[in-house]
Amino acid sequence: MIKDQYKIDLERRSRLGIVEAVWGENKTVEQIANILRGFQQASEVALVTRVDIDKAERLLEIFPSAKFYHQAKTLTLGEPINFCTKLGQVAILTGGTSDLAVASEAEIALKIHGVPTTVVMDVGVAGLHRLFGSLEKIKNSQVVIACAGMEGALPTVLTGLIPQPVIGVPISVGYGVGKGGIAALNGMLASCAPGLLVVNIDNGYGAAMASLRILRSKL
Amino acid sequence: MIKDQYKIDLERRSRLGIVEAVWGENKTVEQIANILRGFQQASEVALVTRVDIDKAERLLEIFPSAKFYHQAKTLTLGEPINFCTKLGQVAILTGGTSDLAVASEAEIALKIHGVPTTVVMDVGVAGLHRLFGSLEKIKNSQVVIACAGMEGALPTVLTGLIPQPVIGVPISVGYGVGKGGIAALNGMLASCAPGLLVVNIDNGYGAAMASLRILRSKL
Amino acid sequence: MIKDQYKIDLERRSRLGIVEAVWGENKTVEQIANILRGFQQASEVALVTRVDIDKAERLLEIFPSAKFYHQAKTLTLGEPINFCTKLGQVAILTGGTSDLAVASEAEIALKIHGVPTTVVMDVGVAGLHRLFGSLEKIKNSQVVIACAGMEGALPTVLTGLIPQPVIGVPISVGYGVGKGGIAALNGMLASCAPGLLVVNIDNGYGAAMASLRILRSKL
Amino acid sequence: MIKDQYKIDLERRSRLGIVEAVWGENKTVEQIANILRGFQQASEVALVTRVDIDKAERLLEIFPSAKFYHQAKTLTLGEPINFCTKLGQVAILTGGTSDLAVASEAEIALKIHGVPTTVVMDVGVAGLHRLFGSLEKIKNSQVVIACAGMEGALPTVLTGLIPQPVIGVPISVGYGVGKGGIAALNGMLASCAPGLLVVNIDNGYGAAMASLRILRSKL
Amino acid sequence: MIKDQYKIDLERRSRLGIVEAVWGENKTVEQIANILRGFQQASEVALVTRVDIDKAERLLEIFPSAKFYHQAKTLTLGEPINFCTKLGQVAILTGGTSDLAVASEAEIALKIHGVPTTVVMDVGVAGLHRLFGSLEKIKNSQVVIACAGMEGALPTVLTGLIPQPVIGVPISVGYGVGKGGIAALNGMLASCAPGLLVVNIDNGYGAAMASLRILRSKL
Amino acid sequence: MIKDQYKIDLERRSRLGIVEAVWGENKTVEQIANILRGFQQASEVALVTRVDIDKAERLLEIFPSAKFYHQAKTLTLGEPINFCTKLGQVAILTGGTSDLAVASEAEIALKIHGVPTTVVMDVGVAGLHRLFGSLEKIKNSQVVIACAGMEGALPTVLTGLIPQPVIGVPISVGYGVGKGGIAALNGMLASCAPGLLVVNIDNGYGAAMASLRILRSKL
Amino acid sequence: MIKDQYKIDLERRSRLGIVEAVWGENKTVEQIANILRGFQQASEVALVTRVDIDKAERLLEIFPSAKFYHQAKTLTLGEPINFCTKLGQVAILTGGTSDLAVASEAEIALKIHGVPTTVVMDVGVAGLHRLFGSLEKIKNSQVVIACAGMEGALPTVLTGLIPQPVIGVPISVGYGVGKGGIAALNGMLASCAPGLLVVNIDNGYGAAMASLRILRSKL
Amino acid sequence: MIKDQYKIDLERRSRLGIVEAVWGENKTVEQIANILRGFQQASEVALVTRVDIDKAERLLEIFPSAKFYHQAKTLTLGEPINFCTKLGQVAILTGGTSDLAVASEAEIALKIHGVPTTVVMDVGVAGLHRLFGSLEKIKNSQVVIACAGMEGALPTVLTGLIPQPVIGVPISVGYGVGKGGIAALNGMLASCAPGLLVVNIDNGYGAAMASLRILRSKL
Repeated sequence: MIKDQYKIDLERRSRLGIVEAVWGENKTVEQIANILRGFQQASEVALVTRVDIDKAERLLEIFPSAKFYHQAKTLTLGEPINFCTKLGQVAILTGGTSDLAVASEAEIALKIHGVPTTVVMDVGVAGLHRLFGSLEKIKNSQVVIACAGMEGALPTVLTGLIPQPVIGVPISVGYGVGKGGIAALNGMLASCAPGLLVVNIDNGYGAAMASLRILRSKL
Repeated sequence: MIKDQYKIDLERRSRLGIVEAVWGENKTVEQIANILRGFQQASEVALVTRVDIDKAERLLEIFPSAKFYHQAKTLTLGEPINFCTKLGQVAILTGGTSDLAVASEAEIALKIHGVPTTVVMDVGVAGLHRLFGSLEKIKNSQVVIACAGMEGALPTVLTGLIPQPVIGVPISVGYGVGKGGIAALNGMLASCAPGLLVVNIDNGYGAAMASLRILRSKL
Repeated sequence: MIKDQYKIDLERRSRLGIVEAVWGENKTVEQIANILRGFQQASEVALVTRVDIDKAERLLEIFPSAKFYHQAKTLTLGEPINFCTKLGQVAILTGGTSDLAVASEAEIALKIHGVPTTVVMDVGVAGLHRLFGSLEKIKNSQVVIACAGMEGALPTVLTGLIPQPVIGVPISVGYGVGKGGIAALNGMLASCAPGLLVVNIDNGYGAAMASLRILRSKL
Repeated sequence: MIKDQYKIDLERRSRLGIVEAVWGENKTVEQIANILRGFQQASEVALVTRVDIDKAERLLEIFPSAKFYHQAKTLTLGEPINFCTKLGQVAILTGGTSDLAVASEAEIALKIHGVPTTVVMDVGVAGLHRLFGSLEKIKNSQVVIACAGMEGALPTVLTGLIPQPVIGVPISVGYGVGKGGIAALNGMLASCAPGLLVVNIDNGYGAAMASLRILRSKL
Repeated sequence: MIKDQYKIDLERRSRLGIVEAVWGENKTVEQIANILRGFQQASEVALVTRVDIDKAERLLEIFPSAKFYHQAKTLTLGEPINFCTKLGQVAILTGGTSDLAVASEAEIALKIHGVPTTVVMDVGVAGLHRLFGSLEKIKNSQVVIACAGMEGALPTVLTGLIPQPVIGVPISVGYGVGKGGIAALNGMLASCAPGLLVVNIDNGYGAAMASLRILRSKL
Repeated sequence: MIKDQYKIDLERRSRLGIVEAVWGENKTVEQIANILRGFQQASEVALVTRVDIDKAERLLEIFPSAKFYHQAKTLTLGEPINFCTKLGQVAILTGGTSDLAVASEAEIALKIHGVPTTVVMDVGVAGLHRLFGSLEKIKNSQVVIACAGMEGALPTVLTGLIPQPVIGVPISVGYGVGKGGIAALNGMLASCAPGLLVVNIDNGYGAAMASLRILRSKL
Repeated sequence: MIKDQYKIDLERRSRLGIVEAVWGENKTVEQIANILRGFQQASEVALVTRVDIDKAERLLEIFPSAKFYHQAKTLTLGEPINFCTKLGQVAILTGGTSDLAVASEAEIALKIHGVPTTVVMDVGVAGLHRLFGSLEKIKNSQVVIACAGMEGALPTVLTGLIPQPVIGVPISVGYGVGKGGIAALNGMLASCAPGLLVVNIDNGYGAAMASLRILRSKL
Repeated sequence: MIKDQYKIDLERRSRLGIVEAVWGENKTVEQIANILRGFQQASEVALVTRVDIDKAERLLEIFPSAKFYHQAKTLTLGEPINFCTKLGQVAILTGGTSDLAVASEAEIALKIHGVPTTVVMDVGVAGLHRLFGSLEKIKNSQVVIACAGMEGALPTVLTGLIPQPVIGVPISVGYGVGKGGIAALNGMLASCAPGLLVVNIDNGYGAAMASLRILRSKL
């Protein structure tokens, strides 16, 4: 029958400047461990997202040098890459507490690639004074990742206020028509603000990698 | 075969304080004219919404005393009702030019019931300074109707800024995921702002009648 | 990494006359407790919705003076506000037993803001005599919140019968096409009754805050 | 290439007691005329639905003995069948003027099969007194077809009031979430009234044929 | 706070000839027991659908004379009604094993109203010879309930073969686009067979009550 | 600005054995003519689908040797390919008249690649005897393309009756839930018949190219 | 009440050359065991898909000669059929680790019918060099089954590269808009590559049976 | 009644470095002309998108110095801005001819802001050699806009091949499940390639403004 013989895309760093991330949600501990061994043998740093606490504990037993970030549900193995520290930083915004997991995933994914971040929490549009109070801090970053669930208006409002590239990350919290994040996603895509960029619901990793591509994109 | 013998709900004004509105979109000129004659015989004021210019011109020939409001695509027959002039006023906001038709429909529907309105145009959230500049004027009204298409964030932002009841009206302009107004509708329903009320897409008449109910609702 | 440093919107009461509610569903006991401490320090009354029984028991140990309303899955800390007792009352209707949780959430959210309510149960449209028998009682209120799942016809029928503002709350019970409350929601939005207002599925809190805004909205 | 050689299901009357209906919407005049010739040669009565006025006029030139029912957009050729006149009658209800086309289609489809009908117009639930005033008349029929657009609550209310079989026909009029009739359809399917039956949106012909099956279904 | 004071619709039998059914899925044992006591006090037979085995066992302890039908997840209290035994019988068909629960719910709901049934299993359209082998048996019934999941083609094929009224019940088994039964539902609604009637997904009770209405509908 | 310099995939025949087809629907006459000139210069046969009669007439003036197939809305330029005549034939079935355009598109696309076809019309499942009467003829083909709109049950029934590969083509005719062909598509995908293959709605060309791949696929 | 008397379609092998498969997901161990006994008595080989580990263990106790394939969640009873070994082989591709369960189901379903397979893992389009490196191996097969989740682009890219029939199997892994596999399914159906065939999401069995039909389809 | 008194957001250039664009689709010639006069008076360059040829001709009569770009359906008034010429360039890719209008809109929107572009046409994934042949040219740009309809796989494949930021623009061409561009949109959002950014369907202007933000985003 089918064997678990993975083809790790080890050329990815040279091709894209990005480490291949392992999506941990639908994989067993054994499958993840096999893949991590492949990364270790290639002396490559590894990033595993969507790892629940049970899997993480078993993986930490196998790989004692790995680090697990509880809120981000993300596990890393190996030292962060150093090569892009002078490219600028990324601001990561959350509308509310429910956006923290995804914001943290973005933060760790940038950290492992050596990109500094600044996090600005609880700036949802139901109380705009909180966003206005943080605007100068946000403008110091070269890219902004704005996480928002419910109606997802935060990235729209922000894109109308600052000239930086803004990446909206719809969050799957919510209920009724907000359930699963589709209302937030469609609100960001249909935004009246010029030039708002969007990634998939809860895709903190994707927003981070897009930020990395932007920071590196120089003449 | 079936005859066009309409049952006009002439008790509606005594029961609800609301004149029955005729939805003109799927009716022929003959059907609308028949219904208007019924209103005339009952000495009742009449309101016909979603009347295109061709139908309107033919109806104005039959009913020379009728008035047609071009932008609102609304036709009225008879004098506005006087009984609620002291109840307060309704502010009607638009995010952009594309929201004008629906905002106008709400305006005429309130006017025919004797309710004064104030219209605040072009206060979409992509340039928030325009909304802030109009905020004091908006706060002078007892109810606010906020029309918005695209991502529909205007009513959410507004509901976070003022204590009045806010009725969001999603507008069907837009393209891609914004087409037909569903993104705006879901954004308003999933809003993080406490107590935002919503009506169907493009339902200016419904927002007006709800405002009327609110203004009349006294101890 | 990211710290749990919440920005509580303590200006909300002065700005909107509404206490900030904490949505308990996606938050841990620790996160809710941190936020409640912030409210206590600011001497502000607190309202936490969608708290399951396990979280509630642990929170009651930490905050012995808090009250937990089992059916409403709602927890309050501090005394109800007194400032609007003379503004009128809100009638809360349910179509059936399955609507009780949401109706109770609305009831507690109004109670904490000092608004009296009257509850009318089991008046679903499959047996209209039950609704007609309660109509006079309902008409004594200044605002009506009508909760209904399945096809959600109750608010439509009611809006055709009384002149008060009616807020329809779609309920997520049901199966097949009724699952999740979308059929009820769309039925309320597409209603043929003039001026029916709608909030998100299961949003008892939102309906309550909208009622509060309406009661306060006076010349 | 492909020739237009139709296989008319002439056994349908002996098998099902139903004449094959031709759906005229996507067929050319030539295609419809070819099929009608086949019916004529087999001495079978023919029913063509969804025929617009232009096609109808050209078909009436070819088949001078055909009858075209303008409101129903339906054309018949040959005399109505006589065989089921004593089985009872069907009541056809409309919520409003926009439901007339579909109600008429049902009426003609029953007429061609020899079934008498009674039509009750404008009994939408926004003014329930109109429905109550017609209830005794409706109860004299053995089957009820209830056409309704918008939220489609009429069949639900009716099914809670009478013991007869009720067939709900969702109507495609409406706008916003009511557009295309899906809200009405889902409302009827999710109905809290016990035993409401449903057919496809605008399917007056289907409701008629189901009524015919019911009337004939005897021990 | 809100008390559990149910308004049982005890007039339903005299009005509709149908016993009010209790939908057990979202109710607690205590809520169901309270309602059953109301039925007992009124000497009315009771029917509770969607009762899982745990709730059923606790209810059987409280009401030892109740009967629980495991496959149908349905509980009855009191003796079946005798008044319609001579009206004919209902054939209940299943496409496959996964349709049994819903078919059984229909069977028990008819049984409690005194209607005899005949069940024909495993006649899905992937092996048509099975359906043809049962056709004569099916034709002996006055109404046919056809349960089918996946693509839901069974009721369409059957409606093309027999003259009786056919009620299609979409079943929620399936995966991918078949998940939740929407594909089966839409297939039945869009059916090319003339006069197929449809109820909500998994609504065995509704199909039974519609059958009862049809059997009783006489001149 | 952007010039219309097309990159025709002339390697496609050597790579896939398939001529590149031009999708004519969203292209102007000028754009199509430019592409056809490219094919002519490369001495390659050309196939243009979804060409309406107006575009076709103007293209025939420019390319007098082109052939236009009216029902298929397809235009060809150059002689059919001869290389696969001995591989077998393809049966193309239609449920009704409305499926003819798509069936014809498949027929022409096969013809231009030298594959013989046999067309079997009007074998929809509402009258199964028509399908059974054609079954032997169908079994003589190596691949079957079954076009069906409405509920789309024809390919399911067929796949349960014959051992050949069956490709279901959902057709976009229909109304209500059948509109646009989604009900037919989902019915085919969710089919209970083992091994039914599906292509996009109205994709006659795709079904033809898949048939060609199957016929050529030999040890 | 209803008995579990299954009608096994034992004629299926003679009619279609395909063994009837039992869909294990919604069936109890007792129901599956009853069906397997029917297969045993008829000396027919049996295939049960979607069997979880708990059910499998209990079935293996009852049928010690059965084989359970853990990754494929598939159980077989009896020896593979030998009759088509010379028809060619099927290549089964996966985009990533999450596609393994469905790919394995296809593999076992082919194996039980005697068809050899070759599995090519981890050739997702985010690193195209992996697919190019396996292309010669893939071209040695007569049919290709390509499993892919997320955006599902693998079958499209492959269909543009090789002349064989390609069957795309959308996989239900993914999150946000990719959840449940609908994005992958629609991507495959809307593919710009000529002649890509599609089956339902996760339908490994269906892809296998379609491959079997193709391999057997000879002049 | 409501007057057309527009609030042009003339601060937008100083705030965002972006000229306010006028969305021409739902505006009359008079409305557009009024807005353009406002821009002229403020000596601001103007960009109007989605202008059809009829409107354009009438606008060119009023504003003889305006330029209309036919393929892009875009009109500009005033000279391009010069301030960002040294920031790099943007590559704009199309999968096929149908993507030209949107690609051109992006091109003009960048041009008016002084950003050079390079256009790479017809590099759809059905013939990958065309994309590989253009890869070096694409890599010379700092940002890539990839337009694709149908299954929308082009941006996914590209993001796996190059390190630059890639913005996917789903195109609304297509039929069946591809109609309206939702399949392409969801495919891009669910992409397995790390860091792909997405804008709304057909939103060439948005992709251009996002590119501008990226090019300007420097330490």
